[in-house]
Amino acid sequence: MSEFKNVTIVKQANVYFDGKVNSRTVLFADGSKKTLGFMQPGEYTFNTADPELMEILAGELDVQLPGCDWQTIKGGESFNVPGNAAFTMKVKTASDYCCSFLK
Amino acid sequence: MSEFKNVTIVKQANVYFDGKVNSRTVLFADGSKKTLGFMQPGEYTFNTADPELMEILAGELDVQLPGCDWQTIKGGESFNVPGNAAFTMKVKTASDYCCSFLK
Repeated sequence: MSEFKNVTIVKQANVYFDGKVNSRTVLFADGSKKTLGFMQPGEYTFNTADPELMEILAGELDVQLPGCDWQTIKGGESFNVPGNAAFTMKVKTASDYCCSFLK
Repeated sequence: MSEFKNVTIVKQANVYFDGKVNSRTVLFADGSKKTLGFMQPGEYTFNTADPELMEILAGELDVQLPGCDWQTIKGGESFNVPGNAAFTMKVKTASDYCCSFLK
């Protein structure tokens, strides 16, 4: 089972869309940051600051990235989002994710 | 903001009730364990092994502990659950929690 060791985790959840999307912030010794999150079925648009790597750990969703057609992403797959961009996800089944903030 | 430092976090979520309740496992250097979780509105019954301290970080729910009347718990409040017991929560608004497993 994959684990992150020697990290700091923020106790309180990050809450979006009335909690239908929630995540926890994980801080690494090298100054990098990830969030571990969970999404209920629904449609959500997010805005990025830094570029992000979104790993879908479980579940299924469609994502529309800037300038791209909709694509289906399943557990075990991932996608990259550019910085300063908006992307929309249609979450079909409850989805577990790990979001890495890239520099 | 409260944080847990020098911990190990399991990447994959613990998923209950089709993901309406999900949590992440946090492992401490002293061998103790907590889960940081999030519940959508709904009614959920859980069974304990070890006794648990449930801190409700945000949200509102009613809980029925073994042999007790229903009581309302709001963000900032907590309750203890005995080991080898069942308890039921009626979650009224999406609720953020920290569950500590006690020995």
